[in-house]
Amino acid sequence: MSRFGMIVKFTTKPGRRDALVDILLNGAASEQATTECEQYIVHVSDNEPDAVWVTEIWSSPEAHEASLAREETKASIERAMPLIAGVEATKLKPLGGKGLD
Amino acid sequence: MSRFGMIVKFTTKPGRRDALVDILLNGAASEQATTECEQYIVHVSDNEPDAVWVTEIWSSPEAHEASLAREETKASIERAMPLIAGVEATKLKPLGGKGLD
Repeated sequence: MSRFGMIVKFTTKPGRRDALVDILLNGAASEQATTECEQYIVHVSDNEPDAVWVTEIWSSPEAHEASLAREETKASIERAMPLIAGVEATKLKPLGGKGLD
Repeated sequence: MSRFGMIVKFTTKPGRRDALVDILLNGAASEQATTECEQYIVHVSDNEPDAVWVTEIWSSPEAHEASLAREETKASIERAMPLIAGVEATKLKPLGGKGLD
């Protein structure tokens, strides 16, 4: 079973970036204890004031799917939706390198 | 001093993806012992046969700059250049989440 990766770029409604960052960091905290979620890192940029990136690594595509079905994730998505103007998601297959176990 | 992140998407010349992956994984291996490079993960996609992504996290922007000046990095870039048709790089500020120390 191979790992699953994703890069998600969120564009928020003006001025809502930090509110979205809080929701995403809370989501990451709720994954701290799960082994299926290997990484869920939240980033911003100096150049794009209304953008937030998440880089994710999961143990498998199925583990990622399962996380989306959890009540906690659904509640988090519901809180985030009103802040978001656009989403671009890129599904990846992490191969290796530094920072993967 | 805040961390520095980068997402780089390489588009290779047709059929040269795996050769570039090898060079990038070798580059990651040469960073295993350095604390300044926290992550250097190489990814591909099922949907884009000539694309390679690298997600990087460094201890600071200066640490990333310094890595580019090293002879080993320059040699690696020289080997990679003939394989590459295009590069898109996004500079990020990693804020937190799961997978950062």
